[in-house]
Amino acid sequence: MMQTKTESKTTLPKEGNFSEWYSEILKRAEILDIRYPVKGVYVWYPYGFRLRNIIYTILRSLMDKEHEEVLFPMLIPKDELMKEEQHIKGFEAEVFWVTKGGCTDLDIPLALRPTSETAIYPVFKVWIRSHRDLPLRIYQIVNTFRYETKHTRPLIRLREITSFKEAHTAHANRTDAEEQVRTAMAIYQNFFDLLDVPYIITRRPAWDKFPGADYTLAFDTLMPDGRTMQIGTIHLLGESFARTFDIKYEDKDGSLQYVNQTCYGISERCVASVISIHGDEHGLVLPPKVAPIQVVIVPIVFSSQEGGGEVNKACAAVYEELEKAGIRALLDDSEERPGAKYYRWEMKGVPLRIEIGPRDLRNNSCVFVRRDDSNKAQVPLRDVTQEAKRTLEEIQSCIQERASKTLFANIYESKGNDAGSEEEMITLKKKVEQGIVSLFLCDSERCGKDLEERLEASVLGEPIYEVQEKSEGKCIICSSKARRVYVARAY
Amino acid sequence: MMQTKTESKTTLPKEGNFSEWYSEILKRAEILDIRYPVKGVYVWYPYGFRLRNIIYTILRSLMDKEHEEVLFPMLIPKDELMKEEQHIKGFEAEVFWVTKGGCTDLDIPLALRPTSETAIYPVFKVWIRSHRDLPLRIYQIVNTFRYETKHTRPLIRLREITSFKEAHTAHANRTDAEEQVRTAMAIYQNFFDLLDVPYIITRRPAWDKFPGADYTLAFDTLMPDGRTMQIGTIHLLGESFARTFDIKYEDKDGSLQYVNQTCYGISERCVASVISIHGDEHGLVLPPKVAPIQVVIVPIVFSSQEGGGEVNKACAAVYEELEKAGIRALLDDSEERPGAKYYRWEMKGVPLRIEIGPRDLRNNSCVFVRRDDSNKAQVPLRDVTQEAKRTLEEIQSCIQERASKTLFANIYESKGNDAGSEEEMITLKKKVEQGIVSLFLCDSERCGKDLEERLEASVLGEPIYEVQEKSEGKCIICSSKARRVYVARAY
Repeated sequence: MMQTKTESKTTLPKEGNFSEWYSEILKRAEILDIRYPVKGVYVWYPYGFRLRNIIYTILRSLMDKEHEEVLFPMLIPKDELMKEEQHIKGFEAEVFWVTKGGCTDLDIPLALRPTSETAIYPVFKVWIRSHRDLPLRIYQIVNTFRYETKHTRPLIRLREITSFKEAHTAHANRTDAEEQVRTAMAIYQNFFDLLDVPYIITRRPAWDKFPGADYTLAFDTLMPDGRTMQIGTIHLLGESFARTFDIKYEDKDGSLQYVNQTCYGISERCVASVISIHGDEHGLVLPPKVAPIQVVIVPIVFSSQEGGGEVNKACAAVYEELEKAGIRALLDDSEERPGAKYYRWEMKGVPLRIEIGPRDLRNNSCVFVRRDDSNKAQVPLRDVTQEAKRTLEEIQSCIQERASKTLFANIYESKGNDAGSEEEMITLKKKVEQGIVSLFLCDSERCGKDLEERLEASVLGEPIYEVQEKSEGKCIICSSKARRVYVARAY
Repeated sequence: MMQTKTESKTTLPKEGNFSEWYSEILKRAEILDIRYPVKGVYVWYPYGFRLRNIIYTILRSLMDKEHEEVLFPMLIPKDELMKEEQHIKGFEAEVFWVTKGGCTDLDIPLALRPTSETAIYPVFKVWIRSHRDLPLRIYQIVNTFRYETKHTRPLIRLREITSFKEAHTAHANRTDAEEQVRTAMAIYQNFFDLLDVPYIITRRPAWDKFPGADYTLAFDTLMPDGRTMQIGTIHLLGESFARTFDIKYEDKDGSLQYVNQTCYGISERCVASVISIHGDEHGLVLPPKVAPIQVVIVPIVFSSQEGGGEVNKACAAVYEELEKAGIRALLDDSEERPGAKYYRWEMKGVPLRIEIGPRDLRNNSCVFVRRDDSNKAQVPLRDVTQEAKRTLEEIQSCIQERASKTLFANIYESKGNDAGSEEEMITLKKKVEQGIVSLFLCDSERCGKDLEERLEASVLGEPIYEVQEKSEGKCIICSSKARRVYVARAY
């Protein structure tokens, strides 16, 4: 859609140019400032950081039930980082190295942690002695670093990931570790549900798992441009790191055993997904559970006008009542036009606006305006808190439903009858430009890479949950026995 | 005091060997693990990190009233860091440099922030346009880095400061900036009061101010070994950084003016001070406001013994009542001897222990044991919550009073009558080994350095608050007109 210059000032078309919309929204809603003079690192504005803090408070509260929060150092000595062969292969091209302190060259270069396995596991070795020390479940929320050479993008592809929540667990055996994988999956489902962010969960192909892991499960969501974004990963590490870092425990029978490990992480992509999936041409649309301001109250009169004092008094009373009820409210009684206020708070995604003017007041009522669907409703002032609570809950689930529908409407399921035909490939290539395609693919890396090249897309892996008509068929490339996998263009 | 081997297992003498006591307490109370293979960086244990989080939640709540939390990048390009001449002189020997990304040498080396002025102020330049943007008051809590070549010490002298709270403000003029200095001072006083950490506030000598500042105020506390530790600093920056980074605003009359700035910081030394000042030979003594566990309930019977079920039920009821009242409680119903439980929770500094045995239960009562003075009291079960609250408050103020007394009893005030005599120097040198000395010193760096050398101590500066008999006199070195300053051996 083409837009006139005037329109571009007030609305932000999302369709057709998601990338531009995303950059604009980060600026206009004051989430991140991109004007920092280092590639791939950004500044969190106060409003953005409040949103970030609320989201991470939710994540912490879910983690705290079974995990303990810790904090490990950011600097990892080169020899430790290099110990796990598979692991370092996956990261070495992306590691930032500290080589100097003051004017002195360091004896051993120090890596800025790209992830913390090699910082944490040497310490697990001394923490874990006996079966009574297991399970050990810890997490931390830290900044991590990747020397990204590709195009960087705020919150999504960063050189400094400012808010990486990484959990690390150790167990007596594989059964317990696999149980932990299921627990982690449940926590992440719960978390993204609270954010109204829909997801698919897949088991990544063996050739795309976390370096050093036995297998990797990943949460992906669908962005408005039809590309998927990985928003969470869970890795069963098995014994590989335990063997490398010699992490053993004394079992009940006195024998020494290697621990069995898992790790799982979520970055500020969770914030990116909330912004991207729900936002519209007027700005952010924040689910009430994460909105820094859940309700904004706007007096529809100036305090100097007739009746202004009464209206402002009524607004202040509503504000206090809402705050007392635990709702994050804001009274915008600044001397601006109501329209300018609407614009600002819509841009910032405030879920509910309450307007009170002199006429409303005469009727002992106010007007509710929902951010998600712009619907208006008259509400008696005496019901305002109760109705606000109910409306916020309704908004939360409406946003959820809409987002979820969009995701699942954009999964195209290949029947697999004419596996590998040119025609099928053309259809799939078209479909994968709009979303996710589901098709049959064997386990081999060769077929996977071939398909990725032909579709210009990535194999996400085998879906974990979705029940499908037919879950076995013939590989679209080599026709051998295969299972359903999801394929998409991925961030 | 010499100790037998048996004693050393159960008690930790603090007098005479504070340094050993400090290392042991960090380990035994599970605050920090020092077994990380990089000098000067450490691992926060879960219990230590909970203590850290509670302390920083208090700090945040005080800051949030007037400041907005933000987050700036950790990497600072060399050219930005080097812009402020005085500033970089103060830090260049201590900066860690990232010079490589993957296998590529970076075009411009990136510094790990030693502090964030040079990361933040280029962005202030674009955030601040008009007088309406002022005052601007932000803070962040971040990891910062110093290439310390001196002896490092957990929480005190670090290569990675994990929890640096730094605030940065910009104002229209110097009057407003000076007002902000007073506000910051009030916030910090409030903060350390809540931690029961006593302090003196001085204006640092001009030759020891923050690099680039007009002047520096500092909070120091007295450690058990008689040395002072700087626990907070407040800097009036004036226009120096504004001129370097070209931070101007349009005033009401349309003219362009430089902003006037302040910055102020607190690091995890605040945690170190809580641990060091209050702890004793049995472990931590935590002020209730910061204790991760405020009350531990210990059943004085095994559940398998006669009456054990009843006792455990009563303990569980007390636990629930306390939790409901907002007290951080723990019921330790593990199958250990009560003595082992006492030992553990005393080591971890739990302010109040509640014991319930079969006999107590028959009397509908329980026993309160205070961590700070070991006093015991019988308390009727029906009053338990009310009494627990009262007792916690009492403990909080008793700890405060004791710590405050110790600090002020260790300030020796030189009368200054025999300024500069050998005898006076001998007395002062002896006194400065136990605490702080107050004496007359002129402003010159030469006299200051001379005194520091002779006393093997540091000039802290002119005290801000304390009223003194005589605040002007003759410089102890050169006999010219001088004001009182504090001198101490400092961390």
